[in-house]
Amino acid sequence: MTTLQTEKIINLTRGVPPAEAFPTEDLIACEEAALRKYGNILLQYAQAPGFVPMREWLANHYDLKPGNIFMGNSSLEILNFITQLVIKPGDTVFAESPTYDRTNTLLKRACAKIVDIPMEKDGMDMEIFEKELKKNPPVMLYIVADFQNPMGSSTSAVKRHQLAKWAEQYDFWIVEDAPYRPLRYMGKDEPTIMSLSPEKVLHLSSFSKLLAPGIRFGYMVGPDSFVKKVTAWAVDTYIGPVMPTQGMVYEYCTRDLLGKNIEKLKNLYKPRLEALLQALEKYLPRADWTKPEGGFFVSVFLPDGNDMDTLIPKADRAGLKLTDGRGFFINPGDGERFLRIPFCSLNPQELDNAIERLAPLIN
Amino acid sequence: MTTLQTEKIINLTRGVPPAEAFPTEDLIACEEAALRKYGNILLQYAQAPGFVPMREWLANHYDLKPGNIFMGNSSLEILNFITQLVIKPGDTVFAESPTYDRTNTLLKRACAKIVDIPMEKDGMDMEIFEKELKKNPPVMLYIVADFQNPMGSSTSAVKRHQLAKWAEQYDFWIVEDAPYRPLRYMGKDEPTIMSLSPEKVLHLSSFSKLLAPGIRFGYMVGPDSFVKKVTAWAVDTYIGPVMPTQGMVYEYCTRDLLGKNIEKLKNLYKPRLEALLQALEKYLPRADWTKPEGGFFVSVFLPDGNDMDTLIPKADRAGLKLTDGRGFFINPGDGERFLRIPFCSLNPQELDNAIERLAPLIN
Repeated sequence: MTTLQTEKIINLTRGVPPAEAFPTEDLIACEEAALRKYGNILLQYAQAPGFVPMREWLANHYDLKPGNIFMGNSSLEILNFITQLVIKPGDTVFAESPTYDRTNTLLKRACAKIVDIPMEKDGMDMEIFEKELKKNPPVMLYIVADFQNPMGSSTSAVKRHQLAKWAEQYDFWIVEDAPYRPLRYMGKDEPTIMSLSPEKVLHLSSFSKLLAPGIRFGYMVGPDSFVKKVTAWAVDTYIGPVMPTQGMVYEYCTRDLLGKNIEKLKNLYKPRLEALLQALEKYLPRADWTKPEGGFFVSVFLPDGNDMDTLIPKADRAGLKLTDGRGFFINPGDGERFLRIPFCSLNPQELDNAIERLAPLIN
Repeated sequence: MTTLQTEKIINLTRGVPPAEAFPTEDLIACEEAALRKYGNILLQYAQAPGFVPMREWLANHYDLKPGNIFMGNSSLEILNFITQLVIKPGDTVFAESPTYDRTNTLLKRACAKIVDIPMEKDGMDMEIFEKELKKNPPVMLYIVADFQNPMGSSTSAVKRHQLAKWAEQYDFWIVEDAPYRPLRYMGKDEPTIMSLSPEKVLHLSSFSKLLAPGIRFGYMVGPDSFVKKVTAWAVDTYIGPVMPTQGMVYEYCTRDLLGKNIEKLKNLYKPRLEALLQALEKYLPRADWTKPEGGFFVSVFLPDGNDMDTLIPKADRAGLKLTDGRGFFINPGDGERFLRIPFCSLNPQELDNAIERLAPLIN
């Protein structure tokens, strides 16, 4: 193994799809067809939320109306719009702890008072949630209920129902960020929180994990009245979204290629998840980790006596790039022993090697 | 003419390129080539400001460094980033009067105190500018120096030099929005304000008027240190811009097609500008109008005794859609007799018909 270690750095830092996941030739053919059929629309100014037939396709996909769909240049930017529309400086927002680091950044930019609710392996600790709720209800909760980034685990059905109920009772928005939801490798779907409380949930998703992140095609599903507000805000911000890529995705979807691509991705990623879980069992029996049924991430909770300032440079010297777990926590100290391990862009052998390298560095 | 009038509505409301201006087949070929050559980059997450070779191409085009270029999803959104980085609520911003209506919206969103400087036919009234400057210098001036939207006229060289000097002396940013600059049909270029004061000017441009608005590819040229700030803000907002269209434009530019397309557009638009100016001479001799040497707009100042609330519905009944001139002024009353006439998307005969219809409606 020594040779391999000095030869090739293994990168465990970014949750991105591997290049072999991109259906490049299909996308080329679809872009060509879309520009030839709809060029005069796709090349012209269009007001947000963009390409009308694609909006209709998504509405149909969710069994809703086009008025329930907003499409933009990444779901992260739509989250940015939401924070600007929902949060006044000083307003309270609840977030999972840990949560997606880029959301933390946007919540801070909006001057939200962030209350972080500790995660258990099936979603947030509901006792703490309820206590905080009674103390000071939020204007918004941000949650990744399916295969959470960074934890990989999912919120249980019971907790989803409870959250939906509380959102109505205490009148707050739930932003349900669900980019990984269609990538389930085992087990069965829980209901979306949106389906349990359609008037209080803003459901975000995108084609970044299902097709390609570079197209930056994200969308929001939500109540008609809120979609109108986001649309007006987007028109004032950039008039309309980038159009040719919306046309490309529309053509891809109407050719019925999306479902097939998702199947291909599941077949690619499932053995990677399994290899990672086996490697953790084999090399890190003393640590604790999540056992996701889909998505991009497994997270490892290291034993006492480990911390990021020691581990990251040691891993670096061993040819292993790690993400600093503290970035996923509002209170960075809570992440001293937290490791997010993205498994989609490494093959089973690389994942085995990575954990083999990691094991001797752990106290 | 009566038949024509009832048969076909003439739309004088939007300054958009006509569909026949889009080099659709070339763009299809360039997108295909770009995705085939650089697919693994264009389909992957890229951090702002986007596709590195395109950034280098633009740097070379402006004889600057890549660090001077920021590329985003429309120059309007880059303006939005600038307002968020430069303006604190209550800060003073100077703007031309009239100015681009969407800029007014973004300045108001940033809670700027907008001081509007009246326009003459060669740019702002410099006496009023100086008086306001001495009273309360702004943090930022927004200007469209070339073929202004909505006036069509350009700022003189003398005024450009004066503005550049003042920006340094009084320490404010000049946002020089220049999307029309390459579309000069007669006369000769004045220097960009950026060239006169590179450390105080944020120069915006885009491919919306030179290729196609639907690709939403805008960019900023400015000091390295400010580009870094905008880049960090953009990464936090959406990670990276939409990439396949940046690759398409890069391929288009490296095939040397851009210059040829600009020549084609000039040949298409110049006779339209000439036809509009002739029609104004013929049908509206009592009105006053600008005589632009390029761009998309001519503006007409109607005689006393006209106002928008009367004129717009009358024009509507005569089959002529007009933009409410009041929208271009911070003080809407200043626009009661102001008509912006976009000429690029109508052919010479349509423009002649439009002004012929307009003439009898004017008091």
